[in-house]
Amino acid sequence: MLFSNLKINDNDPIYTQIKNHISDMISKGLIPDKSKLPSTRELSQILKVSRNSVVLAYEELKSDGYIYSVSGKGTFANSKKDVAKSSWCVNWNNLENNYSKTATKMDIIKNEISWKSNLISFKSISPDGSMFDIDELKKSFLNRISLEGDKLLNYGYAQGYKPLIDYLLEYMNKKGVDTSNKDILITNGFTEGLDIILSSFTSPGDYIICENPTHNTTIKIMKALNLNIINVDIDENGLNFNMLEEKLSKYKYKIKFAYITPSYHNPTGIVMSPESRYKFYNLMKKNNIAIIEDGFNEELLYSSSHIFPIASLDNLNNGVLYIGSFSKILFPGLRIGWVLADKNVISKLESVKRCKTIHVSFLDQGILYDYLYNGGFEKYMKKIRKFYGDKFNFAYECAHKYIPNEYILGDGGLHIFVKLKNINCRELLDKCYEKGVIFMPGDIFYVNDYKHDTLRLGFSRLSFDDIEKGIKVIGQCVRDIENPKS
Amino acid sequence: MLFSNLKINDNDPIYTQIKNHISDMISKGLIPDKSKLPSTRELSQILKVSRNSVVLAYEELKSDGYIYSVSGKGTFANSKKDVAKSSWCVNWNNLENNYSKTATKMDIIKNEISWKSNLISFKSISPDGSMFDIDELKKSFLNRISLEGDKLLNYGYAQGYKPLIDYLLEYMNKKGVDTSNKDILITNGFTEGLDIILSSFTSPGDYIICENPTHNTTIKIMKALNLNIINVDIDENGLNFNMLEEKLSKYKYKIKFAYITPSYHNPTGIVMSPESRYKFYNLMKKNNIAIIEDGFNEELLYSSSHIFPIASLDNLNNGVLYIGSFSKILFPGLRIGWVLADKNVISKLESVKRCKTIHVSFLDQGILYDYLYNGGFEKYMKKIRKFYGDKFNFAYECAHKYIPNEYILGDGGLHIFVKLKNINCRELLDKCYEKGVIFMPGDIFYVNDYKHDTLRLGFSRLSFDDIEKGIKVIGQCVRDIENPKS
Repeated sequence: MLFSNLKINDNDPIYTQIKNHISDMISKGLIPDKSKLPSTRELSQILKVSRNSVVLAYEELKSDGYIYSVSGKGTFANSKKDVAKSSWCVNWNNLENNYSKTATKMDIIKNEISWKSNLISFKSISPDGSMFDIDELKKSFLNRISLEGDKLLNYGYAQGYKPLIDYLLEYMNKKGVDTSNKDILITNGFTEGLDIILSSFTSPGDYIICENPTHNTTIKIMKALNLNIINVDIDENGLNFNMLEEKLSKYKYKIKFAYITPSYHNPTGIVMSPESRYKFYNLMKKNNIAIIEDGFNEELLYSSSHIFPIASLDNLNNGVLYIGSFSKILFPGLRIGWVLADKNVISKLESVKRCKTIHVSFLDQGILYDYLYNGGFEKYMKKIRKFYGDKFNFAYECAHKYIPNEYILGDGGLHIFVKLKNINCRELLDKCYEKGVIFMPGDIFYVNDYKHDTLRLGFSRLSFDDIEKGIKVIGQCVRDIENPKS
Repeated sequence: MLFSNLKINDNDPIYTQIKNHISDMISKGLIPDKSKLPSTRELSQILKVSRNSVVLAYEELKSDGYIYSVSGKGTFANSKKDVAKSSWCVNWNNLENNYSKTATKMDIIKNEISWKSNLISFKSISPDGSMFDIDELKKSFLNRISLEGDKLLNYGYAQGYKPLIDYLLEYMNKKGVDTSNKDILITNGFTEGLDIILSSFTSPGDYIICENPTHNTTIKIMKALNLNIINVDIDENGLNFNMLEEKLSKYKYKIKFAYITPSYHNPTGIVMSPESRYKFYNLMKKNNIAIIEDGFNEELLYSSSHIFPIASLDNLNNGVLYIGSFSKILFPGLRIGWVLADKNVISKLESVKRCKTIHVSFLDQGILYDYLYNGGFEKYMKKIRKFYGDKFNFAYECAHKYIPNEYILGDGGLHIFVKLKNINCRELLDKCYEKGVIFMPGDIFYVNDYKHDTLRLGFSRLSFDDIEKGIKVIGQCVRDIENPKS
């Protein structure tokens, strides 16, 4: 009892004794902040003193800031009084390291114009939510939760939910990958897969090859980890193999990794040919450079020709780490991706995963597994291949028709890439924004030598009307910059 | 068409021309691995040659390893033939850095005895899944998915799902935290919260204070990031403040962070008193050492007395980063935790979160929000406080009764901590394992100077019978070690 060790003596005024006792208890934290004190009537009964003494004590405590009253509710402790006397300000900007600084500086969500109502935005390459099979998903949830709800809601395994892993091994097998000495780690989407690989097997200063331009998240992660990026151009002729071989001989034996996106490369939309996949694989193999293959949107291949992933060339070896993801086109909100690699590599990555985030939501893994197993994914893919394929063709035609360009790239997928003739994309973006249209300026995808005359147009969530309207505006703005007086 | 550029000439044998054409295409990847070839009959019709030529070509291709037949299914390409000729073996053990090595070495799942059937295991402190309110969760899922399914299944925000953030700000406010200059980041449980904080604000070699023993995952993360750990004893007298002050003066101005678990400290189970919380906070403030407060199982407080978190003392300042979690006792499978800190700090952590894992599953956040908002959590807590409280009391009594000990710690929570009298816990574990009982050896919780005479007993998933039976076995084994001849 809070007042049991208050013995009222005869020397000091009673209200002072009560006041000192309470202020002391608040300072020591024995009366927690914001906890309710007895009413003056109650306390006078507890202490067997006159109510006036208590009222007086409370008044002084209030004016000293130890307690406060809320009308109709009572009197409460304000234990922060003492602490607040001297303020404490940690200088977090000083404490911030390179990782945090890079992540903040390269955070496009914070630095790029964001969507506002009535804008036609070509920025996003996330899928159109209205295409999701919510009913299928509901079924999968209800199915899994009734079969093994308490298991899925409790701790699971870092490597992932076993039925999902097995399903994905089979799935990769169908893509031509011999999985007999391979294994799979489930990750929070592509991003965590790449982060885990690079933070397990690289040290600051290590060299890594990547296409230039490439996925901005990848550049961000590589820079945050202080890697030396060896960039190799990719343009209307595909990957520049001459440049690649030059750099290989220049940095011989120094390079640890190569990061590559062979299908619907982000941002150019190029799909690498089988011959180039072979050539690239054999070059890396010759130079003992491990390959990180980004299976980005591979599932989307509109035509029926299946092009094998580079991982399928590595069957008896251990040089390719393949990152797949269902969080690009299926259900990005679920954040489920995977790394397929040599068993020994996956075992290491599993421990790193456990160290960083324990495991991916088992509920989500269970739902996704059920959805895949019951054919939901295949049905969905059939539907969206046509849906996005039509949009791609339309956007590609419109861009050619309306935007003065040097070239336009894209083999399908959810975006196209436009190379302008020496027009600054930032100036263009400002002009377009005034007219209610935005896009992703291409410079954010370049490693060092920012190219200012490219743009990525994502069309997945736009109507045909808006695609045409928006691209017309972009084309008009390009012409306005080309001919300022017209 | 794969064979359209094969022009049969008159100089070479037809079967050789067919054979060379196919082997060439397979080598170049133009016929993908495992893809089906036309039957000999079909190919002879396509090429307008005799079927015998094709059969002969196929036979030679088979014996050269370029193709293979599956009885009843057809003939398939084996494009890996060439690649397989010379093998490639990346030495991943050499590439592995300190982070990965530490994560693997300290991975208790890989290194400790794991559960087998018929074992009574005191290792786990995960909740009993049979207590989960699956029906409530179902309702929340169906509710959210019908209200905003396509939103929750698409990309969300790195900081988290807004309604959940607002709910948690209010929730922290009820714990006495003035949230006016604070904000919240949603993370994949406690583990990601700590990983993000430390990988944003520390560099290798930085000094960090922690209790010794402490949460083994925390030690693992700190060591993986190459931090210098300043350990301060916690034992039957609570945190050793003399030792803390000694170390503060020894490492003055060098120390950046202090990590502390004030409630149901893992592994000792101690709840820090309000006075000690004040004292600790003021000491850190004086020395300008930012506090990482682990709100571990704070929700479990069995008695009604609410003890304020240290974060509530920091209201007008920015020195405390509080990590909370619903993935310890509510639904560990969902992996949802949060960091509460100064707005500026959360903004930086948000970018780092986006760089590492984009965001936590929006589906899970939506479900959890709905569950919390509709009172599911409060109902659940009422139920489990009694459930685990009874088990705690029983386990505590049993341990006192049956295990010869120096002292036993625990103020509630899902585990108790036993200090033996100079008995090696590994030897004890071996003996107990023989008799079908396992527990968590205490040494894994110590920073450097491994103490070999402690153990943590988690009882959350055991019946009363098994608790008593298991603890009896442990007690008997202790006595067997004490008196080897008896």
